[in-house]
Amino acid sequence: MGVVVPLESDRGEGSDAVERLTELVGADMDRVTDLILSRLASQVEMVPELAGHIVESGGKRLRPMMTLAAASIVGYQGTDHVKLAAAVELMHTATLLHDDVVDESDLRRGKEAARKIWGNQASVLVGDFLLGRAFKMMVEVGSLKALDILSTSACVIAEGEVLQLATTKDTRTTEDAYLQVVNAKTAALFAAATEVGAVIADRPDSEQAALSSYGRNLGIAFQLVDDALDYSGRQATLGKTVGDDFREGKLTLPVVLAYRRGTADERQFWERTLRDGDQNDGDMEQAIAIMESHGCLDDTIGRARHYGAIACDALAIFPESDMRDVLISLVHFCVNRSY
Amino acid sequence: MGVVVPLESDRGEGSDAVERLTELVGADMDRVTDLILSRLASQVEMVPELAGHIVESGGKRLRPMMTLAAASIVGYQGTDHVKLAAAVELMHTATLLHDDVVDESDLRRGKEAARKIWGNQASVLVGDFLLGRAFKMMVEVGSLKALDILSTSACVIAEGEVLQLATTKDTRTTEDAYLQVVNAKTAALFAAATEVGAVIADRPDSEQAALSSYGRNLGIAFQLVDDALDYSGRQATLGKTVGDDFREGKLTLPVVLAYRRGTADERQFWERTLRDGDQNDGDMEQAIAIMESHGCLDDTIGRARHYGAIACDALAIFPESDMRDVLISLVHFCVNRSY
Repeated sequence: MGVVVPLESDRGEGSDAVERLTELVGADMDRVTDLILSRLASQVEMVPELAGHIVESGGKRLRPMMTLAAASIVGYQGTDHVKLAAAVELMHTATLLHDDVVDESDLRRGKEAARKIWGNQASVLVGDFLLGRAFKMMVEVGSLKALDILSTSACVIAEGEVLQLATTKDTRTTEDAYLQVVNAKTAALFAAATEVGAVIADRPDSEQAALSSYGRNLGIAFQLVDDALDYSGRQATLGKTVGDDFREGKLTLPVVLAYRRGTADERQFWERTLRDGDQNDGDMEQAIAIMESHGCLDDTIGRARHYGAIACDALAIFPESDMRDVLISLVHFCVNRSY
Repeated sequence: MGVVVPLESDRGEGSDAVERLTELVGADMDRVTDLILSRLASQVEMVPELAGHIVESGGKRLRPMMTLAAASIVGYQGTDHVKLAAAVELMHTATLLHDDVVDESDLRRGKEAARKIWGNQASVLVGDFLLGRAFKMMVEVGSLKALDILSTSACVIAEGEVLQLATTKDTRTTEDAYLQVVNAKTAALFAAATEVGAVIADRPDSEQAALSSYGRNLGIAFQLVDDALDYSGRQATLGKTVGDDFREGKLTLPVVLAYRRGTADERQFWERTLRDGDQNDGDMEQAIAIMESHGCLDDTIGRARHYGAIACDALAIFPESDMRDVLISLVHFCVNRSY
């Protein structure tokens, strides 16, 4: 029932990437965490309570680590990368709070979603507060170019979420249209997070572009694997509810492929379950069976591997280093994490 | 049944203030409107549709006019005030979209609320998009101090909304606690809107502070009169639903005063209708009758007049001019608009 990952190399390749990355940027990440917690302070009790709940529930904190890693690979010597990384994580946290409201999710990272404890209203408003705090931190850094990159990504993310809302339940969504959603709602922030690391170090455009490309393509690969995992029984361990996308009628890549490759009967199945939202016991298992019969989950991972390869090649202009190694290894981890 | 306004001067004082202000900043306001409409553009159809709905429903656009007026009174010669004014209006529009979701409102400015047409989900996301666009425009202006002032106000507004959420239905809310809400959710943006007008003109701190104080106190007066109007039958003409605050259990100043001044029976009435949300036909009329018996609506306007006076005095450091005249006149309009 799990996703079969067609590996080109060892099954475990990249499996220690997150640990190695954490080792390399660990001291800075501690500063990022301290900074975030200190910036959640507010006289209004509910603000740090609710924000703390989602911030402390952790997650992998990949995005702020991307900013720290990018600053490190270009040899940045200052301290502003910590503030920008914290701002990136707060932006991401704000979108998670709003996403939970939009998706009516009950769980987030294996814990009860904030909206279930404090309500949708507080989640919307505390999300706004975190977005405001994120911008304030970027302003403190004082780099107009970094501000431009991050505020642009904030618009793009919101646009992507609206686009996803509009395509939800539309079984005729094309792979291109779906990639546009992924680019906007996930890859844009990864790209911005890495790009600003080079920007504050005043590195040449070529290095800024390389890091932006790495972040963008890693983000796409990451999202596509996430999409495949949503149809894998193993996902329960990741703290999301298995089958969330299916239940919400989200047209992710495995479904896009399955609909296009499917028989007339199978298309009717997708229309009933996703377009019409008429789902019965056993439908999720049926969905997975159809996907597997057409190789849709494998091919989704295959597509992820394609973007991952672009991400790795983008780093080729940097001299060899532990950090470059780890960032390449992280791509393998993202693609192979389906076990 | 209407609010009786204890006027110190002619009933109509300030009645032409908005027209005169519109005359003075009209050309710039046209630029602001064009700029806003051009920045709503998006490949994602629903974004300009939904955003256009709320932007075009108009309202008085007081906040962006404040930025233009402040820039004018300090003799600013550039063009960045137009961008900042547009950013201020987009920030405000974003909070309106989120407010409607939080308050579950059906109407906004006399039109069907966006959330009723496009849903809560799209309203949350398009609000985020507008906030992102607002920041992008501020970044284009490139004044880090203006960015700091406006991003700080974004945090303060969100905090104020959360505070209001926490105090909703709490009949024991004090006047001070309520003023804190008003300061944050309304006055902070007015203060920021006027202050940045002086900031981009590089005027001395004393002038920035004077304009910030004018904006803040005008904002407080404006909100308090709004609160009184919510218990006035005349409000239907303003495009809000009469009695919204009452139905939502909001503890605004008229209620704060009525609860403190009330008899035991009256306090029970407020607890049943606002704390417990148990409302019957005739309760709104009863609420107004209790308020009038204790002079709460008149005194709310009286409090507004107090803050209005501070706003007017703040402008005293500027030489006499048409603009200063109009801004003072605007305070009178705000306080006297209850007819």
